[in-house]
Amino acid sequence: MIIDGKAMATEVEADSRSRVERLGFGPGLATILVGDNPASRMYVKIKHAACDRVGICSVNVNLPEDADETVILETIESLNSREDVNGILLQLPLPGGLDPSRAMSAIAPEKDVDGFHPLNMGFLLAGAERLVPCTPKGIICALERLGVDLVGTEVVIVGHSNVVGKPLAAMMLNRNATVQVCHVYTRDLAEHTRRAEVLVVAAGVAGLIKKNMVREGAYVFDVGINKVADKVVGDVEFESVLKVAAGVTPVPGGVGPLTVSMLLSQTVDAAEMQMETWMEKEKEKR
Amino acid sequence: MIIDGKAMATEVEADSRSRVERLGFGPGLATILVGDNPASRMYVKIKHAACDRVGICSVNVNLPEDADETVILETIESLNSREDVNGILLQLPLPGGLDPSRAMSAIAPEKDVDGFHPLNMGFLLAGAERLVPCTPKGIICALERLGVDLVGTEVVIVGHSNVVGKPLAAMMLNRNATVQVCHVYTRDLAEHTRRAEVLVVAAGVAGLIKKNMVREGAYVFDVGINKVADKVVGDVEFESVLKVAAGVTPVPGGVGPLTVSMLLSQTVDAAEMQMETWMEKEKEKR
Repeated sequence: MIIDGKAMATEVEADSRSRVERLGFGPGLATILVGDNPASRMYVKIKHAACDRVGICSVNVNLPEDADETVILETIESLNSREDVNGILLQLPLPGGLDPSRAMSAIAPEKDVDGFHPLNMGFLLAGAERLVPCTPKGIICALERLGVDLVGTEVVIVGHSNVVGKPLAAMMLNRNATVQVCHVYTRDLAEHTRRAEVLVVAAGVAGLIKKNMVREGAYVFDVGINKVADKVVGDVEFESVLKVAAGVTPVPGGVGPLTVSMLLSQTVDAAEMQMETWMEKEKEKR
Repeated sequence: MIIDGKAMATEVEADSRSRVERLGFGPGLATILVGDNPASRMYVKIKHAACDRVGICSVNVNLPEDADETVILETIESLNSREDVNGILLQLPLPGGLDPSRAMSAIAPEKDVDGFHPLNMGFLLAGAERLVPCTPKGIICALERLGVDLVGTEVVIVGHSNVVGKPLAAMMLNRNATVQVCHVYTRDLAEHTRRAEVLVVAAGVAGLIKKNMVREGAYVFDVGINKVADKVVGDVEFESVLKVAAGVTPVPGGVGPLTVSMLLSQTVDAAEMQMETWMEKEKEKR
């Protein structure tokens, strides 16, 4: 079975749209794009289009290629204080190898819809998830929709990045899955991946996972986006792995759309939480 | 080989003592004990004695059994603002099943020497470790002293608590170990533990790990503290496992002293960082 991330994302979007209607106003999502890396520009464009579909108002901030940290921090500060902005997203990577960690920490935690603020990462690790990274959340959402019970399930994650591998491992543990994390330093990768009932691959190596590395009946999530001879492919050999797995996400059309749909639903989450906080404060005033 | 946690802790303490001398003042560690649970009282006493050995000034705060959250939060606030207090530790568990998460978040992150503040947990997960939980840090310190290269090493952790399992998993990944986390919901525990080159057991089940579950030449860390017929034992069958393992920590005298020594060294870390911040501010004033 092909795990149709796009179809699932459409369902999540429909849900977000009805939540926006109930909210009574269009939540605001600010995107900050520094420079004009074509891939980054495309990702921001995809997110804006998705916002439109759901009724989220996107606020587009473009900073020049040579914007320094101070300018980025000032931009974030001003967005933090804007009442019409409920979520803030800093498109990565920053140009010139600028370290984004200070900028990411500057985003108000309650507007951190990408889930990269250390405070939100900490709540995640402690099992009190608030806003969390969107790709891990999308994968868990897909597993729920597939009816996979994660308790005790053998989950193997390939890749230990801050964006996917590590937060996903913690989220899987929060759901009582048995979790193995492998990466470029792992000695015998196949030995581990073959035990996976759920296999998530976020290594950034085209065709890394072959049929003989996948357990029969596994669910395989391919987070990789690699350009090979002008074609975009994942980290998994899709056609052959599809023959042994219970389900595989295609690239494109798998984890990507799921990730974007989580960004939208978390923007609605953020707007709902901020409205609640606002109402509590109003109540106290009376 | 018996991994002598006590001897290692003594070395770490000696190092902390020289750092205190270089600092020129005795850092202050405040302990908050709510109620009078005998085990908690004993742990606080052990920590105070260790402080004495190293030249750390312990500040002892005892709150009555029926102290509510507000009282605890006020206590923390006042310790946060005291300049002679560099580290704050809230002894857990709180009586009456009181949830400590709000209190833990109230401790100033730069004084959070137990490493449980969500901000510090988040820095940990993102690989930018600051103050971190003491038991995981003690285990990693011991492995360094044993000369174990963690890169690519097969690490298996049994237990997925916020205090040991989850933060240790993230810290091992930060060091490029290959990490498996098992727990009470894991189906075939032995199948996993048998692959471990480093096995850390924090399950709280006396004698859970038997000889046939341990790989030859593994390093085994026993975090368990269980009372069986008035004797304190770990989660590992010590005598038999010692025959196959390269090293095993005894209980008591293994992970416990290492944990306390990390608390002290992190208190010195905190004092150093606070002094640096203070000096930077003074510089700016001029």
